[in-house]
Amino acid sequence: MDRLPGFRDFYPEPLPHPDVWSADARNYIFDKWRSMARRYGFREYDGPPLESLELYTTKSGDEIVAQLYNFTDKGQREVAMRPEMTPTLARMVAAHERNYKKPIKWFALPQLFRYERQQKGRLREHFQFNADVFGESDVAADSELISLLIDTLRSFGLTAEDFVIRLSSRNAWHDYFNQRCTDESKAYEFYQIIDKLEREQPEQSKTKLSALGFSFEEIQSFIHTGQPTAELDAILKNLAARGLGDFVKVDYQVIRGLAYYTGVVFEAFDKKGEFRAIAGGGRYDNLVKLISGGKVNLPALGFGMGDVVLLELLKARGLLPKFESGIDLFCLIEDETLRPDSLKLIQDLRSAGFAVDYSLTPAKPDKQFKRAQEIKAAFTIKVERTPSGELMARAKNLQSREEKVSAPSEIVKNLKP
Amino acid sequence: MDRLPGFRDFYPEPLPHPDVWSADARNYIFDKWRSMARRYGFREYDGPPLESLELYTTKSGDEIVAQLYNFTDKGQREVAMRPEMTPTLARMVAAHERNYKKPIKWFALPQLFRYERQQKGRLREHFQFNADVFGESDVAADSELISLLIDTLRSFGLTAEDFVIRLSSRNAWHDYFNQRCTDESKAYEFYQIIDKLEREQPEQSKTKLSALGFSFEEIQSFIHTGQPTAELDAILKNLAARGLGDFVKVDYQVIRGLAYYTGVVFEAFDKKGEFRAIAGGGRYDNLVKLISGGKVNLPALGFGMGDVVLLELLKARGLLPKFESGIDLFCLIEDETLRPDSLKLIQDLRSAGFAVDYSLTPAKPDKQFKRAQEIKAAFTIKVERTPSGELMARAKNLQSREEKVSAPSEIVKNLKP
Repeated sequence: MDRLPGFRDFYPEPLPHPDVWSADARNYIFDKWRSMARRYGFREYDGPPLESLELYTTKSGDEIVAQLYNFTDKGQREVAMRPEMTPTLARMVAAHERNYKKPIKWFALPQLFRYERQQKGRLREHFQFNADVFGESDVAADSELISLLIDTLRSFGLTAEDFVIRLSSRNAWHDYFNQRCTDESKAYEFYQIIDKLEREQPEQSKTKLSALGFSFEEIQSFIHTGQPTAELDAILKNLAARGLGDFVKVDYQVIRGLAYYTGVVFEAFDKKGEFRAIAGGGRYDNLVKLISGGKVNLPALGFGMGDVVLLELLKARGLLPKFESGIDLFCLIEDETLRPDSLKLIQDLRSAGFAVDYSLTPAKPDKQFKRAQEIKAAFTIKVERTPSGELMARAKNLQSREEKVSAPSEIVKNLKP
Repeated sequence: MDRLPGFRDFYPEPLPHPDVWSADARNYIFDKWRSMARRYGFREYDGPPLESLELYTTKSGDEIVAQLYNFTDKGQREVAMRPEMTPTLARMVAAHERNYKKPIKWFALPQLFRYERQQKGRLREHFQFNADVFGESDVAADSELISLLIDTLRSFGLTAEDFVIRLSSRNAWHDYFNQRCTDESKAYEFYQIIDKLEREQPEQSKTKLSALGFSFEEIQSFIHTGQPTAELDAILKNLAARGLGDFVKVDYQVIRGLAYYTGVVFEAFDKKGEFRAIAGGGRYDNLVKLISGGKVNLPALGFGMGDVVLLELLKARGLLPKFESGIDLFCLIEDETLRPDSLKLIQDLRSAGFAVDYSLTPAKPDKQFKRAQEIKAAFTIKVERTPSGELMARAKNLQSREEKVSAPSEIVKNLKP
């Protein structure tokens, strides 16, 4: 029996096969994500991986259904495995925002699901770092969020040589659109064409834009010579004050595909242009109102960063550490009459916070020692009986070969976890 | 739009409503689970939350389908959201066990799903700590696993006053059955009746047992006076050597409902008997062979511990900590001309590992200070300009009221994250 196509198995390293993923690398990424979000004062939340289908169609229209893992449950409810976290978050915030001081700064690390029928071999799930701010319309919040994005990527060892945040504005594009077209219903289609400019053939974009009454050349000129809006300028100044000016540039090519963005938008890209976007986000000031049926109105903004592109980039730049067993001490049991005393020592060491492993069953001393080396234990430790009948514990540092001998109860205090 | 019945939203504390769950408490539980598993040398893995329906029907028969979130996906595959982790794990181990030294000691913290139609209000998902050992048939492995279970519960502050591991043996029950019945096909039905003895009316159990040709009274006598098997005796001795003897007792009432257990089985219960089982597990030496279609044969054992009962127990015993924002420093910006310098200081503090918050927009000094107190920041910090024009940073310990003043670049070194 195989796993389903597009889903991943995560194994401990060293990996047994190129077809599986590293649980250690995933935890490494999760730890960095959590750690930086907390430094920025973001609090963690989570929601259900399964939601009403309606939560997604309200926001994105019925066409989204083609990309969802949706089904009818046994209670005849139309449900879907979550394709993104923002609708869940907007629902949660709308329900209880009155109990939280503003701005609300929250993050989550959800697993997300998309069923894309046509693209075999492509993943159907991924994990995503989501950070969002509610209740602050000033661009100071946009700056704070972008700063978190930059610092998160930097915490993996990535530098301004490796990535850049491309900053843009739906407002600027909205103004551009309004000055040339009075039919607001065409705005979303227009944004979709701009979003695809980089990936589509120019001729194709040109045709589509003409059909809407826009000039491809004029748009190219706006993208390359358009000046930063006052909002974007304020963000650039804010990031410069933090010393993060090198990580960001205004780039009107970016517009973000999703329908709900309303203000500043941005995407993080590797500078060599080898990978898809590492992260993306922006303002969505109308979504809480939409999801809450008009009951709650809160400005909002956020970004999402997936684990797959990030992992590819870290691998390509040699920035993934080598993951080992994490064992501090391997207890050698060379004399089986001392097994009960060894178990007691192991118990005491673990209680003191050490990671300890040992051979569950009798094994030759050299085999045990080899195992300790294989798993890169920092120390071996063993219980010995002195000629006078006393129990002693002997710890050996496998790097320095230095040994320490003391009473078993003392050795626990002499080692640092 | 509401969340689906039986699913949970997890919010940051303090909780806004009795109907929602604590993301902080969940993280606290996850951290303890991970930490103890690693001290025991267990490595983390994960698998897909969605699997082929066949993976579950192979193991548990078609009757399991009634309890599953199963559906037909857009590629016409029969799939199910995972109701338990063991089949996924057995599949993963069978696929790549040759690349790992035995015993394989792995753990995971999956979210699991069950659709129980009849019981409204009951949860349809929970998180579970799963720890398993593969490739070791000696009861030393059972002892190690039970010891991990005990130490995990102890790490939450639970003591031998609070919980006990009830230890039993499918082998003992199998022998009991075989001595009285030659029709092996009735064994599973027999186990099911024994499993329900504590929860059902005695008359009901009596009738069912009679129908199979068993005496209710004789079974009661076996439960209360049956002697530990050699296996159970070895486990008791092993745990006693570790100093964990008080946490375990032999109790043949326990047999475990699932079909696949083959040897020692156990369950953790609160001593007051107020809650359902906190955890349960045992040997399942035949499952890898079954899942791999006979290709791989490995002895195996494991346990699962859910987050819901554990949380109830910790709450009832007053063992849940109070969760705060986790902010180390709140930066006061009382002079807006110093905001750029304050942003730089905040950036430096965060780079040094501190969790820092501040007011994104101009606010009155007393309002900022009140906010710092509300979120229980350890320190406030602010940038000041001296009469001679120098920038200084003033940090104030909100507990001791002690202040430190130094150059902004120095203050980062003077505080401990």
